[in-house]
Amino acid sequence: MSDGAKLFFGKPCVEAMNQRISSGLQGKNALLCTIGFDDGKWNQYTESLSKSADKYGCQCRRVVAPSGVLVKDFSELIAENSADPNVTGVIVQQPLPKVYGEALSRIDVKKDLDCLNPLSVAAMYNGDEGFRPATPSAVIALLKFYGEEISGKRAVIVGRGNAVGKPLALMLLAENATVTVCHTKTRNLPEICRSADILVSACGVSGLITPEFVNENAVVIDVGLSFVEGKSRGDVSDEVYKMCRAVSPVPGGIGPVTRAVLFENLLKATKLQ
Amino acid sequence: MSDGAKLFFGKPCVEAMNQRISSGLQGKNALLCTIGFDDGKWNQYTESLSKSADKYGCQCRRVVAPSGVLVKDFSELIAENSADPNVTGVIVQQPLPKVYGEALSRIDVKKDLDCLNPLSVAAMYNGDEGFRPATPSAVIALLKFYGEEISGKRAVIVGRGNAVGKPLALMLLAENATVTVCHTKTRNLPEICRSADILVSACGVSGLITPEFVNENAVVIDVGLSFVEGKSRGDVSDEVYKMCRAVSPVPGGIGPVTRAVLFENLLKATKLQ
Repeated sequence: MSDGAKLFFGKPCVEAMNQRISSGLQGKNALLCTIGFDDGKWNQYTESLSKSADKYGCQCRRVVAPSGVLVKDFSELIAENSADPNVTGVIVQQPLPKVYGEALSRIDVKKDLDCLNPLSVAAMYNGDEGFRPATPSAVIALLKFYGEEISGKRAVIVGRGNAVGKPLALMLLAENATVTVCHTKTRNLPEICRSADILVSACGVSGLITPEFVNENAVVIDVGLSFVEGKSRGDVSDEVYKMCRAVSPVPGGIGPVTRAVLFENLLKATKLQ
Repeated sequence: MSDGAKLFFGKPCVEAMNQRISSGLQGKNALLCTIGFDDGKWNQYTESLSKSADKYGCQCRRVVAPSGVLVKDFSELIAENSADPNVTGVIVQQPLPKVYGEALSRIDVKKDLDCLNPLSVAAMYNGDEGFRPATPSAVIALLKFYGEEISGKRAVIVGRGNAVGKPLALMLLAENATVTVCHTKTRNLPEICRSADILVSACGVSGLITPEFVNENAVVIDVGLSFVEGKSRGDVSDEVYKMCRAVSPVPGGIGPVTRAVLFENLLKATKLQ
């Protein structure tokens, strides 16, 4: 039993990234364009991105599509903003209602900050140049910031979604981890999780990861987010914080790093243009 | 210790598939177009595809690009043949020299029998409609033919290549297996492999998988192929055949099923056109 996990907060990692991002974006007139619907969570998120844009000295254009817009008009909205030479980077609301999925192919791959265009997805899959999605990139950035070796380690990911589980599996594999992906149909979930050197939970089920799921030497990265009695909670239970080597907490862990990664990608996009 | 593994030969699986394929392709004037270079292994493969085409009552056009052809000319070759209304399906030499990779995006996704166009890859990744690559499809077809449950089972894949390891991981995940991908940087490889209900080896290292890698209840699918003293050999050592529940052998296992899957995809393509 350890004396309590080391906490992998996002803030120090973000501060280290910020220097590079701010100096890189200085005088570049970068413009981040967000495209989505009038949706509570998304509005909150784009508002916080807009504030971050201010801090980094760049602009943010928040495009809101009318509810029930035709797919072709939504596609056109993405295409127009992507083609606008003033726009440096584009992100589109996730999750997006499935019917609008085809519109993502209209994002310019050189401005595709969150790896949403199918061509960006294929490049990630093939290990080719291109943008990687922000949240899994943040997981890897956080691990590296805190000096964790990834190569040769056993990584277990709980969750197989397109936003975190699947892309993170491919990205950790590219970093030479041995990767296992678990999900709702997994049997013996605690046992499999216990075999992890790096355990990532991306379920959005508060308290799912109990000590039974974690070995004492593991690093646990909490990417889950749910709301319990109005408070944001992660997947990792309080007891885990007492018994494993390190935990990235929710809130205050991966969230701010994800935001910084988006602006790091915006910087990368300005260089491509 | 079992009395010896049940052998998952490809032939009975292919025979079951053939009825559907042959009757489906009958009178459809299907034309399979193979595009590649003058390369010994590829030539041998396309020759055998050509013979299979004969048996299925369809045509095969073998396009050979001149060695050292410019990327744009190779792309044009693919585009022309894909656009030819007589061509029902296209496959391009794999592995393809990296420099020619961009040409794969010129394959019509409706004719992309081996899932090579980046748009096909992204559709596989996202779980959307489209063609799946032939070899991993054959692994799943073989398991299903022999009545093996996949959902909830632990699948361990040794190898993370674009032809087998990575796509098979995504496809087994879509079938609700819990999937682990191992590779040259994996530590404790035998131990991890022993945890598998379904163990797939796609390394091309003769005899790599010894009894130490296999639990007695496992099904082992050999997708490795190497040549030892002129004979084709799989990754699975002879001793494994004596101690586990089932093995798909090399030769005679996954190879013929892969070929049948290509023609099954050709049939699917004729329906899309």
